[in-house]
Amino acid sequence: MTAEPGGDRSPPIHAVVPAGGAGTRLWPLSRRDRPKFLLDLTGSGRTLLQATVDRLAPLAETVTVVTGVAHEVAVAEQVGDGVDVLAEPSPRDSMAAIGLAAAIIGERHGPGALVGSFAADHIVSDDAAFASALAQAAAAAGRDDVSLVTIGLTPDHAATGFGYIAVGAPLGEGRAPDARRVGSFVEKPDAATAARYLAGGAHLWNAGMFVARVGALTDALAELHPELAIGLGAIGRAWDTPERDAVLDETWPTLTRIAIDHALAEPLAAAGRVAVVPADLGWTDVGDADALASVLVPDDRGVAVGTGTRVVAEDSDGAFVHAAGRTVALLGVPGVVVVDTGDALLVTTRERAQDVKGIVESLDGRGLGHLG
Amino acid sequence: MTAEPGGDRSPPIHAVVPAGGAGTRLWPLSRRDRPKFLLDLTGSGRTLLQATVDRLAPLAETVTVVTGVAHEVAVAEQVGDGVDVLAEPSPRDSMAAIGLAAAIIGERHGPGALVGSFAADHIVSDDAAFASALAQAAAAAGRDDVSLVTIGLTPDHAATGFGYIAVGAPLGEGRAPDARRVGSFVEKPDAATAARYLAGGAHLWNAGMFVARVGALTDALAELHPELAIGLGAIGRAWDTPERDAVLDETWPTLTRIAIDHALAEPLAAAGRVAVVPADLGWTDVGDADALASVLVPDDRGVAVGTGTRVVAEDSDGAFVHAAGRTVALLGVPGVVVVDTGDALLVTTRERAQDVKGIVESLDGRGLGHLG
Repeated sequence: MTAEPGGDRSPPIHAVVPAGGAGTRLWPLSRRDRPKFLLDLTGSGRTLLQATVDRLAPLAETVTVVTGVAHEVAVAEQVGDGVDVLAEPSPRDSMAAIGLAAAIIGERHGPGALVGSFAADHIVSDDAAFASALAQAAAAAGRDDVSLVTIGLTPDHAATGFGYIAVGAPLGEGRAPDARRVGSFVEKPDAATAARYLAGGAHLWNAGMFVARVGALTDALAELHPELAIGLGAIGRAWDTPERDAVLDETWPTLTRIAIDHALAEPLAAAGRVAVVPADLGWTDVGDADALASVLVPDDRGVAVGTGTRVVAEDSDGAFVHAAGRTVALLGVPGVVVVDTGDALLVTTRERAQDVKGIVESLDGRGLGHLG
Repeated sequence: MTAEPGGDRSPPIHAVVPAGGAGTRLWPLSRRDRPKFLLDLTGSGRTLLQATVDRLAPLAETVTVVTGVAHEVAVAEQVGDGVDVLAEPSPRDSMAAIGLAAAIIGERHGPGALVGSFAADHIVSDDAAFASALAQAAAAAGRDDVSLVTIGLTPDHAATGFGYIAVGAPLGEGRAPDARRVGSFVEKPDAATAARYLAGGAHLWNAGMFVARVGALTDALAELHPELAIGLGAIGRAWDTPERDAVLDETWPTLTRIAIDHALAEPLAAAGRVAVVPADLGWTDVGDADALASVLVPDDRGVAVGTGTRVVAEDSDGAFVHAAGRTVALLGVPGVVVVDTGDALLVTTRERAQDVKGIVESLDGRGLGHLG
């Protein structure tokens, strides 16, 4: 039906959305008990989780959200019917979360099924580019010489807050013409290294978007972390049976806590078995108020505002205000960040927004832990 | 009873407190319909008006507040019994306001009575110094060669927001040893001139504190502004009679709008008939949020807070927060000013606080005039 790369010949993808983490640097918008993915940060009418599901649903055979028990009800309410919600009894890091979903999908759809994992609290503004990248990733993941495919973001600034992907040789896959081998995954760089990566053009941001065949994932896990493969396999087989709770209760707490990056991506890259599809998706992890402001007022001149905020500003270019339903006057405070959530008011600058985490940590010591 | 200058030999003072003006630069704390003098800005439990009356009541024979009809009820509720509240039918500037009170006091207590006028919305932190200065002013005002006495504040910085008093020769009054002749009243200076005044030591701030015999005031007004003297005299004579309303309604709207500074103080100073008592009162006119912050956190290091405000601050020295009952986090915003009144939130800096007036004026154009 389509001549696009990947096209309609790729097997369908089963989307997995790990919904964890509080997003502390977005306090006071996000909280321990009101994590970022549950919030409508842009005033679009959809939360980050809902926007993620909206983006994946037309492209995926099924959508599965994996979250903690504390957020299971809120997540289920937000995503509605048609989306599978898996509740982790306790946090065991991303390998267990994604591995759980993959194990269940493998039982239901067989080892040839493709799973693709995408964070619940990022923003992607170019849906067409995302669809194209996903199709290429699916095609690449279908190859026998590839165990894992990641979508890597083209950097637009020398970010120090993300891990990077060092790009290797072209994959040579006709249905994934942009795909390359991954040379290595590299940790968050310092500013000088990030500037070098940006100038060199051979590094991409690692946004944690992974696509793989269930069988390839299972095989790699069996080789690299056999105890995880055994545990997750047992849970997956029991999931759609009366044994689910018993096996889950017995097995889940024993699973190794490890991120998928360390568990699979890095060792598989070292073995030359990871591919990357470079893409320019209009992506942001909305990591702090500065990132959110960049989404809402890309030109850095205006004053970004949340829903129903009225702002009167003078000499305050690049300011960011998020104060639903309030009237806010700014005078002589360029680049200021003002976030008012009713129970808490934060005033900082876009430069310092990423350090808000420290404020949240200090709340406990001030008897204000309930606001964290 | 006391050996202090002035002592108990001075005639009693009848205190007059003009309570007008909105204090726009303290927006959003002050409003057109919630003027500065009605507010408890320091969290002391007393409004500026109440603190003014508290300060004057032990030193004065009577206390009279002159305010606009719009604030008559609020003022009366705040000052309680024992304080006379005069309502001006319309604003006619300070000469008419003070002259009205003086005329009534003259009718009731005779032309030898002393009147002393003190703004309703200033802070004086050294009550003993104020009592001493007032006693000296009363003694100076009793002299035949003096028509008007002002209390002048010793400058502690090169302020450009106040008028100044150029100090002349010693008055030579035994019961007012600090009193001098006033050389002249000078308008608000530019920064260089203010710095010169501060360095020279021969200029005082004019805080609008005036003391005079009623007879001397009436004589000077009869000479300099006979139409005002006639009108105010007529109202004063009618005040405690059934004719009050009729005479007030007929006469008040005809009175010249002029400040007491221009009407009396400046021409009388030119004639050598004004004395000044220099004083160091811990005074401020609380003209803007910066001035208020200086009262609440004199050392400029801490974070000033309003009643019931909880502040968590990092790298925010000299910040000023006034947000009753709220939790406010500051990060990397030294010298920021945050004022939250529920219906409005202002974020500016202590340097720019004096320019808030412009924001208030722009509210009308934004359909937010009700917040001004």
